Amino acid sequence: MFLETVKSEGLAHLSYILGADGEAVVVDPRRDCEVYVEIARSRGARIVHILETHRNEDLVSGAPVLAKMTGATVHHGPNPEAPIAWAQTIRDGEAVEAGPLRLHAIETPGHTYDHMAYAIEDRDSPHGHVGVFTGDALFVGDVGRTDFYPDEAEKVAALLFDSLQKLLALGDQAIIYPAHGAGSVCGSGMADREFSTIGHERLNNPRLQLDRQTFVRAKTSEHHQYPPYFRAMERINIAGAADSGPAGTPAPCTAAAVAAHDGPVVDVRPVNAFQGAHWPGSLCLPVGMLSAFAGWYLEAEAEIVLVADDGGQAAEATRRLGRIGFDRVAGYFDGLVTATAGGQAFGHLPVVGAAEVARRRRRNAGDWTLLDVRDIDEWTEGHIPGAVHAYVGRLPDQADRLDPERRITTMCASGARATVAAGWLKANGFEDVDVFLGSMGAWRSRQGEVESGPGGG
Amino acid sequence: MFLETVKSEGLAHLSYILGADGEAVVVDPRRDCEVYVEIARSRGARIVHILETHRNEDLVSGAPVLAKMTGATVHHGPNPEAPIAWAQTIRDGEAVEAGPLRLHAIETPGHTYDHMAYAIEDRDSPHGHVGVFTGDALFVGDVGRTDFYPDEAEKVAALLFDSLQKLLALGDQAIIYPAHGAGSVCGSGMADREFSTIGHERLNNPRLQLDRQTFVRAKTSEHHQYPPYFRAMERINIAGAADSGPAGTPAPCTAAAVAAHDGPVVDVRPVNAFQGAHWPGSLCLPVGMLSAFAGWYLEAEAEIVLVADDGGQAAEATRRLGRIGFDRVAGYFDGLVTATAGGQAFGHLPVVGAAEVARRRRRNAGDWTLLDVRDIDEWTEGHIPGAVHAYVGRLPDQADRLDPERRITTMCASGARATVAAGWLKANGFEDVDVFLGSMGAWRSRQGEVESGPGGG
Amino acid sequence: MFLETVKSEGLAHLSYILGADGEAVVVDPRRDCEVYVEIARSRGARIVHILETHRNEDLVSGAPVLAKMTGATVHHGPNPEAPIAWAQTIRDGEAVEAGPLRLHAIETPGHTYDHMAYAIEDRDSPHGHVGVFTGDALFVGDVGRTDFYPDEAEKVAALLFDSLQKLLALGDQAIIYPAHGAGSVCGSGMADREFSTIGHERLNNPRLQLDRQTFVRAKTSEHHQYPPYFRAMERINIAGAADSGPAGTPAPCTAAAVAAHDGPVVDVRPVNAFQGAHWPGSLCLPVGMLSAFAGWYLEAEAEIVLVADDGGQAAEATRRLGRIGFDRVAGYFDGLVTATAGGQAFGHLPVVGAAEVARRRRRNAGDWTLLDVRDIDEWTEGHIPGAVHAYVGRLPDQADRLDPERRITTMCASGARATVAAGWLKANGFEDVDVFLGSMGAWRSRQGEVESGPGGG
Amino acid sequence: MFLETVKSEGLAHLSYILGADGEAVVVDPRRDCEVYVEIARSRGARIVHILETHRNEDLVSGAPVLAKMTGATVHHGPNPEAPIAWAQTIRDGEAVEAGPLRLHAIETPGHTYDHMAYAIEDRDSPHGHVGVFTGDALFVGDVGRTDFYPDEAEKVAALLFDSLQKLLALGDQAIIYPAHGAGSVCGSGMADREFSTIGHERLNNPRLQLDRQTFVRAKTSEHHQYPPYFRAMERINIAGAADSGPAGTPAPCTAAAVAAHDGPVVDVRPVNAFQGAHWPGSLCLPVGMLSAFAGWYLEAEAEIVLVADDGGQAAEATRRLGRIGFDRVAGYFDGLVTATAGGQAFGHLPVVGAAEVARRRRRNAGDWTLLDVRDIDEWTEGHIPGAVHAYVGRLPDQADRLDPERRITTMCASGARATVAAGWLKANGFEDVDVFLGSMGAWRSRQGEVESGPGGG
Repeated sequence: MFLETVKSEGLAHLSYILGADGEAVVVDPRRDCEVYVEIARSRGARIVHILETHRNEDLVSGAPVLAKMTGATVHHGPNPEAPIAWAQTIRDGEAVEAGPLRLHAIETPGHTYDHMAYAIEDRDSPHGHVGVFTGDALFVGDVGRTDFYPDEAEKVAALLFDSLQKLLALGDQAIIYPAHGAGSVCGSGMADREFSTIGHERLNNPRLQLDRQTFVRAKTSEHHQYPPYFRAMERINIAGAADSGPAGTPAPCTAAAVAAHDGPVVDVRPVNAFQGAHWPGSLCLPVGMLSAFAGWYLEAEAEIVLVADDGGQAAEATRRLGRIGFDRVAGYFDGLVTATAGGQAFGHLPVVGAAEVARRRRRNAGDWTLLDVRDIDEWTEGHIPGAVHAYVGRLPDQADRLDPERRITTMCASGARATVAAGWLKANGFEDVDVFLGSMGAWRSRQGEVESGPGGG
Repeated sequence: MFLETVKSEGLAHLSYILGADGEAVVVDPRRDCEVYVEIARSRGARIVHILETHRNEDLVSGAPVLAKMTGATVHHGPNPEAPIAWAQTIRDGEAVEAGPLRLHAIETPGHTYDHMAYAIEDRDSPHGHVGVFTGDALFVGDVGRTDFYPDEAEKVAALLFDSLQKLLALGDQAIIYPAHGAGSVCGSGMADREFSTIGHERLNNPRLQLDRQTFVRAKTSEHHQYPPYFRAMERINIAGAADSGPAGTPAPCTAAAVAAHDGPVVDVRPVNAFQGAHWPGSLCLPVGMLSAFAGWYLEAEAEIVLVADDGGQAAEATRRLGRIGFDRVAGYFDGLVTATAGGQAFGHLPVVGAAEVARRRRRNAGDWTLLDVRDIDEWTEGHIPGAVHAYVGRLPDQADRLDPERRITTMCASGARATVAAGWLKANGFEDVDVFLGSMGAWRSRQGEVESGPGGG
Repeated sequence: MFLETVKSEGLAHLSYILGADGEAVVVDPRRDCEVYVEIARSRGARIVHILETHRNEDLVSGAPVLAKMTGATVHHGPNPEAPIAWAQTIRDGEAVEAGPLRLHAIETPGHTYDHMAYAIEDRDSPHGHVGVFTGDALFVGDVGRTDFYPDEAEKVAALLFDSLQKLLALGDQAIIYPAHGAGSVCGSGMADREFSTIGHERLNNPRLQLDRQTFVRAKTSEHHQYPPYFRAMERINIAGAADSGPAGTPAPCTAAAVAAHDGPVVDVRPVNAFQGAHWPGSLCLPVGMLSAFAGWYLEAEAEIVLVADDGGQAAEATRRLGRIGFDRVAGYFDGLVTATAGGQAFGHLPVVGAAEVARRRRRNAGDWTLLDVRDIDEWTEGHIPGAVHAYVGRLPDQADRLDPERRITTMCASGARATVAAGWLKANGFEDVDVFLGSMGAWRSRQGEVESGPGGG
Repeated sequence: MFLETVKSEGLAHLSYILGADGEAVVVDPRRDCEVYVEIARSRGARIVHILETHRNEDLVSGAPVLAKMTGATVHHGPNPEAPIAWAQTIRDGEAVEAGPLRLHAIETPGHTYDHMAYAIEDRDSPHGHVGVFTGDALFVGDVGRTDFYPDEAEKVAALLFDSLQKLLALGDQAIIYPAHGAGSVCGSGMADREFSTIGHERLNNPRLQLDRQTFVRAKTSEHHQYPPYFRAMERINIAGAADSGPAGTPAPCTAAAVAAHDGPVVDVRPVNAFQGAHWPGSLCLPVGMLSAFAGWYLEAEAEIVLVADDGGQAAEATRRLGRIGFDRVAGYFDGLVTATAGGQAFGHLPVVGAAEVARRRRRNAGDWTLLDVRDIDEWTEGHIPGAVHAYVGRLPDQADRLDPERRITTMCASGARATVAAGWLKANGFEDVDVFLGSMGAWRSRQGEVESGPGGG
């Protein structure tokens, strides 16, 4: 009996393939699902069932695609809001089987109403469950977010509390297999440990130390991001993705083709490269940050040209965009320096350090804005007095609060999100922008002044 | 915090690399240890410690090689029989650290006297141990063999019992990471499930359901194989392997070179290919069976020529031979059919089915031997009346009991080991040999007569 | 300017991708054409043109598929028999361009009427052509076959002679890039050298040493195989293949699924494995011989189950079948020995050597046939007196000449084709079949009696 | 008969493996020579001979390493200056054989005194040579440099002329296989076409259109770079490299380890990333420029720490450094942005465009230097009036001519070498440095003023 984890970086999404005696089950497959077929084949198994723990809001589910590829049946909890035509409904207490494996469905609402966990029984060792797929109910070190039904916030938080009791009741010995690891937007307190058990979570997970009332209070006071592409994911996942998405290296583009392109130019190189020089008007979305931030800035149907260091980076970016439903990558461009030698204009994004920021604050002229783009919890926990706050993802909504005549210096925790934000600003009419590299970390290192609370942001 | 398993097929050996925050620990590395370095690098970590659960008898340890490659320290339990010069002695209660990880050594003698388990503490989630490296003390579904000190059989079995109580005391929540999986010669009752916990074993492992006295009685009545190469492994592992062993594809050989070769010719193709035609005098040791059977037939210093389907198969065979200390592969040959067209002689091994075996038994002439080469437990559990028993690995010792004038039909459970045995017989002067394909399984399918007990073997 | 060769083993088919300055041209693409896209991308180029030297009869052209993938235009010589809807017609003297490359079309009929060669001009080094894609007109050491228009045999042979003069006129300096290498059924005298020039061929190619009349006489007296699947290739290539064919590992099958399968079971393991044991009724078509022999035995629409050593071998077999239009691989089976232990019946194919064949001939009983399955040229050049001749591919037509009551021993040059033939015979009602391993080669080695001429075959 | 080219990017070094019938010959192997063994094995061949066309001055030869790995013999032309102990001397007219291949040595001095070409004879097609390994005598579109014996400049240029006549005498049909392609420092006029013949070069190569006297005059007026590491290559290649050099990913480093490192920090990321932010005092040597420029700046024995985007880039950089003898890579660092958040200082290199350069020139203040770092031929052909010239590689010698009090703007053809130069300047005490991105290309695009001739550089 094997169990392999397939991790999608960026989304920090975890999916699983589990099998024995020539049959296999896949849990929460991602869209580019050839990987599960290849693992199954290398294990000499056919995929016979696909289980979904819940309707995904942060990524395109591969379940309908994998079902088409393999003939396997998809099982999904009851979804009264929008029945899933491409899946069979599975209910609490029902089970699916594959060889000696039996997977028991456990209704575990809270994160979503349709959420199911699946407890693993090995019929050759039938005492107790050896593991459980916990979806977005229970993570290593955290539990799922419960902010998707704002009008019923307390109700769903309480539902999650009750669902967690069901999971705990499986016994300390059960290994947990959650749908996300550290770095996901589906929970902010996840440990970066990749393995745990019900017992170890019972002892250590801070959310499992609370009584029902405290738990509900804690959950309802959390802040989570809800990028606009979530709506598209919902729509796509109800309909069911048609295919496994774009694959391979996109076509190379000439500088002339980029210049003629009528749509977003997305620079997926590391932030330092964007700072050094970039295509005028391009967005800075390094490949490692695409999953988190592309969904704030790009329209679903936009045709995209990438700027990349090389074809491999462009291929990885294309794959990651496809996982969140951005399929239209027209090509990639890797010749910026050469193009400048052909007369192509370029942008440059200066970076400054903490000393320069301190100097500017002291100078205290009215022509400068220090813009902190971290999330609200980070800001509240501590920020530089006088800074202005707008979350990096919300700039498209909130930039009208900024004065385009002023020099803007962006900052975050380190300078990465600050560069993403600066890229957006430059692409949207702000001309005098630079980046505070080191940002809050560097500021604290040199013991700069910090204030906490909502502040003037 | 990551934990990856490196599995060596054939030996069913499991080793681990565990790390966090830029540092990593390797547990029970195999000899070809570049793989750990590559995993560490892909995780952005340096290997700082190497832990050995015990002195391996079935494979060459890679610990001294990996230490040389990386500068990491090797830790090994106290070994009064033969101190390990290349390792530091670690004692019960001591711990090693890597980033937020702490690994606690737990003296767990029984399989060997120097056996240590290592319990995993995550200092960021410090309540209870999240896992434990159990070495050859506790497997999924079984416990370690205790037959290495025949004069102290009861004593070491009791020691193992006590060691297992220590492991159980870690709590149900601890995931277990043993040194072997199903298919290893280090335990015959292992489940083929690749994941379990202390709690799940406590509930299901048959050996953990016994009281001390019954446990000792059960362990001391087991039969285990002790192939002659174990002695060489012991010697090599005390000295410490000098390098990571042969790698890559061995050199191709011409038929003339094979003919001139003065040493064993080892055919690593599947058994059916050997049956069809083989190099005269070659041994049948398919790549999947090499780890289990090469150590019975080959001398440590022998220079070997392989017969393989292609270079990839030859490379895999070379790697597996290196893991058990057979380093001298002079080359491989893949041109048997072509060579026969050049006049090269060849062997052929006929296969027969259950009907033919039944016919021969009925005929009951004194010129035929049905030779069952399964192990003693399989034989005792049920065999064909009139068959003769000799374990496949013991043929070099026991073949003098066989009459080379008689036709010999070899059998096992399916026909695979029977072909290995037939190959050895043909290479050692027995001319009229064939194989009962389907063997005991086919015999039972057609409801042939079976007797149990020690029999006439 | 780069030029990479893509070789398809088995078919010995050669295709090319040539490019410079961001643009590329593909010549004679095979069906599974992702490889050209990946090479182009790794070279930073877009594929802009696809050239076909002629309508392929031995494989599925990938040109329409690659055109769909890339948007490139396909160019094909004028084909009055059946206009190619998915291609643009290119005529003698026209050229296509990509970056500094210019490819000049040269009408070179003979092998087919629509045959075009394409001479490579580098506009940065414009004196003389640096190379030429010669299709099936000129090979290394041979020229194309001219037997596709039996009623016009002399005419097309003479056309080929004239076409070759045009190629010679390009000058000695031009490197030749033919559509096939040694091992193809499209020419029997090819050298196994993978590189040559017009000059080197002018000096060495035996066919280029002949005057027009001798050339025509030589060509019209050749014998070539025309397997039945050629008709399907013609049909498919006129319509244009719809996709790049099956990819990846086919699904694993249980023994029960193979038993239930209603269609051909194709054993793609090496011949020795088939001899050792095989699924009853299966065909022996080792992966390396599939391209040459599957097209004689399989119906275009048949659903196939493979017997393979492992998934990798099954995947390679599936790919090769797809290249010649057999797309329906339902799965593969790799558990024959295990299945026999479950009571599954099996076939066995004994092999005998030259001494045994000599003994049987001496015995001279009327119950034995020695069946030589080589091609007619090999047979005529020399065979064993008393043997019967039927080409391996023609057995489905000619087996009614054989007496199923007799023992049949198949032979060829080495034993490989003999095993393929024996497999077909056993699957078609001949029960007493064995294989002469070593065959004609072994017979000559021991100086057995040989006669030449048409003989009694 | 196969022939595969192994290309080492950066060095634009070409080496070859050629074989037939189970034997192979390698020509001019690079240091990391496992690749030849793997190609040979995939072709079923043993490497039996290694041919060197000449003593390499720009890279570490792998011949002695490959000889040790395979047992093959190395052949090298007579080298009176320094006999090569690890090679056998081969003389004009001698030949080596492998299967049906025969390789004829042709003394072709000029580039070096010991230079040999090797003409390929296929004994199965023996009329004329099918190809020739031309080493550094004849390239596609150019011939070898002849500046290694400055006191005998005319003599060796004439020798090369005579050697080229010998190559031309082989006949138009011979394919040429040179030791370098476009981008090598061993010849500046190479075409970027990867394939040619003697005949095509005779017609197109500009150097082959000259009479002896004109040829000598042209060769003796060329300028070539002679980076200091060439001396080390000479020394290493006479002794013979001991091993195939560093392989795999170097160990990851923490920021603290980089800070503590006492030796060069080499930033191998693309130039834009270095411009954005870099480790203080680090050198800018992007992986694609390492082969050309590391040898100017690094001491042979220096222990190097790399700054890289990721482990894969660090591994590639390590391999390329090893090929030119820089073996001591202590580790790599990929966490600059994170480190700045820990308070780590950083450098930033502003970039400016042509408009800003024009503005600065107009301002004409005495506090600014425009430094052109292209080679002397590029400078002479046309430069911006008022600029100062120093070749990028010669800065360590010539920087004392620059005023560290002035702002320096570096430029080249595009901005790439300008960034390398700016990195060196910043690491060596010049504080106010920026880069003219687009450089000469951008300048010409906007029709800026240009003067030719030696100028004020």
